[in-house]
Amino acid sequence: MRYQRPKGTADILPGEAQKWNYVEETARMLFDDYRYQEIRTPMFENFDVFSRTSGDTSDVVTKEMYDFNDKGDRHMSLRPEGTAGVVRAFVENKLYGPEHPRPVKVFYMGSMFRYERPQSGRQREFHQIGVEAFGSNEPELDVEVIAMGMDLLKHFGLSGLRLEINSLGDKASRDAYRQALIDYLDPHFDELSDDSKVRLHKNPLRVLDSKDKRDQEIVKGAPSILDYLNEDSQKHFDKVKHLLESLNIPYVVDPDMVRGLDYYNHTIFEIMVDSKALGEGYTTICAGGRYNGLVEQLGGPEMPGIGFGLGMERLMLLMEAQGVKFPVLDQLDAYVVGIGEQTSVLTLQIVQALRADGFAADRDYLDRKPKAQFKTANKLNAQYTITIGESELEKKTANVKQMRTGTEVSVPLAEIFKDFDEIITKYFTDDEEID
Amino acid sequence: MRYQRPKGTADILPGEAQKWNYVEETARMLFDDYRYQEIRTPMFENFDVFSRTSGDTSDVVTKEMYDFNDKGDRHMSLRPEGTAGVVRAFVENKLYGPEHPRPVKVFYMGSMFRYERPQSGRQREFHQIGVEAFGSNEPELDVEVIAMGMDLLKHFGLSGLRLEINSLGDKASRDAYRQALIDYLDPHFDELSDDSKVRLHKNPLRVLDSKDKRDQEIVKGAPSILDYLNEDSQKHFDKVKHLLESLNIPYVVDPDMVRGLDYYNHTIFEIMVDSKALGEGYTTICAGGRYNGLVEQLGGPEMPGIGFGLGMERLMLLMEAQGVKFPVLDQLDAYVVGIGEQTSVLTLQIVQALRADGFAADRDYLDRKPKAQFKTANKLNAQYTITIGESELEKKTANVKQMRTGTEVSVPLAEIFKDFDEIITKYFTDDEEID
Repeated sequence: MRYQRPKGTADILPGEAQKWNYVEETARMLFDDYRYQEIRTPMFENFDVFSRTSGDTSDVVTKEMYDFNDKGDRHMSLRPEGTAGVVRAFVENKLYGPEHPRPVKVFYMGSMFRYERPQSGRQREFHQIGVEAFGSNEPELDVEVIAMGMDLLKHFGLSGLRLEINSLGDKASRDAYRQALIDYLDPHFDELSDDSKVRLHKNPLRVLDSKDKRDQEIVKGAPSILDYLNEDSQKHFDKVKHLLESLNIPYVVDPDMVRGLDYYNHTIFEIMVDSKALGEGYTTICAGGRYNGLVEQLGGPEMPGIGFGLGMERLMLLMEAQGVKFPVLDQLDAYVVGIGEQTSVLTLQIVQALRADGFAADRDYLDRKPKAQFKTANKLNAQYTITIGESELEKKTANVKQMRTGTEVSVPLAEIFKDFDEIITKYFTDDEEID
Repeated sequence: MRYQRPKGTADILPGEAQKWNYVEETARMLFDDYRYQEIRTPMFENFDVFSRTSGDTSDVVTKEMYDFNDKGDRHMSLRPEGTAGVVRAFVENKLYGPEHPRPVKVFYMGSMFRYERPQSGRQREFHQIGVEAFGSNEPELDVEVIAMGMDLLKHFGLSGLRLEINSLGDKASRDAYRQALIDYLDPHFDELSDDSKVRLHKNPLRVLDSKDKRDQEIVKGAPSILDYLNEDSQKHFDKVKHLLESLNIPYVVDPDMVRGLDYYNHTIFEIMVDSKALGEGYTTICAGGRYNGLVEQLGGPEMPGIGFGLGMERLMLLMEAQGVKFPVLDQLDAYVVGIGEQTSVLTLQIVQALRADGFAADRDYLDRKPKAQFKTANKLNAQYTITIGESELEKKTANVKQMRTGTEVSVPLAEIFKDFDEIITKYFTDDEEID
């Protein structure tokens, strides 16, 4: 019986997985420079952790959650995004305590799950890299997070990035805007799509996000959140813009940006790129924002937070489309060739000795003829072959060949077991090759 | 509302996550030396992928699977182990094709899920590192895999390891043994536990694994698989033992070992350790074996396979218990102190410039007084502080202090923005300190 991977999931095969690992390592190094430390949370959480935080009206909760009852009849969900689980862990493990210098800065990377219609760069099991920083309300932190997102994408070798920012203001600003929006949309109620009708009084900001054409026409004349920011919110947003300018990070203010999840406030941002690989026109590759209040919502103290997330699948598509080179380390230092069955023990001993010295080494495991073994050594781009035949076995030597130059030498086995590095220095330095 | 992580799952917090990352990186480097490449498969598969391969009578399938119906009513299960998914991917992606040099050698690392009673080192969401090699029947490959397992645990700094091996033989040997076992157990049928009664005719080898005391007494007199190996199987097992000896890898043959999953044959092995951290007496830390036939069972061609898996949670417990030092990189190169609100832009610019140069740098994001900032720099063990006050702002300089020596210098800002490395060389070389 033959099986297929579940729809909307992917196998990341050797070669491709090396690229993923390169991207993750690059991110780890940059996060270290910014002093963000890794956190790992469970692959599933109590359903409520996500439903309470994402907002009851979000598509994620209403249609896309991978939820199930476990054998103890607890309602669980595979995580649809990274922030809620990290905040839950932050609260449960009391990372808000005074022994943790603030802001507490963490990053995560891993699988997320949404039951969506699969499309290019959108999988049901997808992967995100994200960061969260807790405990500071300063606009400087907003800008650090945005700058880190830009920096990260540049470290991946991407170009043509466009930073869009907006402010949703604090709760007071948002409440004022919410009312203004309802006042504006109510006269158009009958013209709105069914989804928007439901959302109008529950969460009118969502209507701004509607993908329905007629909704979008109506929304064009709607008031802007930026006209409803109170003094504190305006000051915060102005400082963010000023600091971005001082770091020479170009940005565009998009007053219509609201983001898909309910928990954002103050600064929100999207890093976008115009690439056919991801869709038509500018699409989002990295996005985030402030979520002051989320820690409280999950049972913690009053504590501000901010973060971003980026999707690995879309990132990889974009890197391929922009022709980014992945510096993949895949060197085979030595391939050990055995001629005749009686060499099998010795070749295994040599391979193991080389690996113990930190060399990438391999041999044949198919009992193949020497010709086939040499062919494999070539195909795998081995730097050296070490050949053991009957005469070598008898004389306790090995034939070592540098593949690039074709230089061959007969070397006592004892030297190989002692230190292969010395053999390279002794027999295959550049001077030797010139001779 | 406060939430807890699901029972049997863990949060891996900063500090702890660094250790996990160190272990994973160590494994990656070793796997590279052995030429095993990473593969990543989905977190869930069709339920049948696991139920068909693990064996209908295994505890994993009957009691412990995290299975659920997705929104399309497909019966899925979170993966309870790594091998079945990798074999499914191997077949579906035709990695058995001639363009892939054999053996095809892969490794994986990630979350696995079993609904078990949580106990020390046994979580419902747990993590495994594993390897699989396909396409060679040679005993040399069995020994490579075993040697790599031993090597890996030694790279983690572990000692007191004990390798136990056994052979389940090929299908013919196993069928002969199976009959002999039924013949032996049948007269004891009424004395067996209920679980063993069910298993006796379905899979009598499982009875050998029973944890029931009375079953264990009965089983003591049972025939040994090693007396039923046919010539080929015996030859294979003898070669494995001979090669282990030639590599100076000590081992013990345990004829009662059967392993928990149905798909094994020929060589099986467990690496054990006697540590109170894991339980009483010798317990298993790494285990694996041959599973010729599994690739066919999942719809692929006839193709042998062998692999091992090791549990991260138990590994970490053991490393802690043996006092292994984790060489954690957590250096803060520079902490930038700002005195007065008007320095905020400049300190952010300096921090960003240092990070762009690859330094780990940080600053305050809480608008705190200089004294508190210096305290944080100390607590974070910063190598250097860079201080900007009113006079520095005016003179376009910064005060740079090497924390270890207390040496302080006033440096033009332009030099800091140009290259902080040069500042270290120019002002803080050992010669300077001696002066």
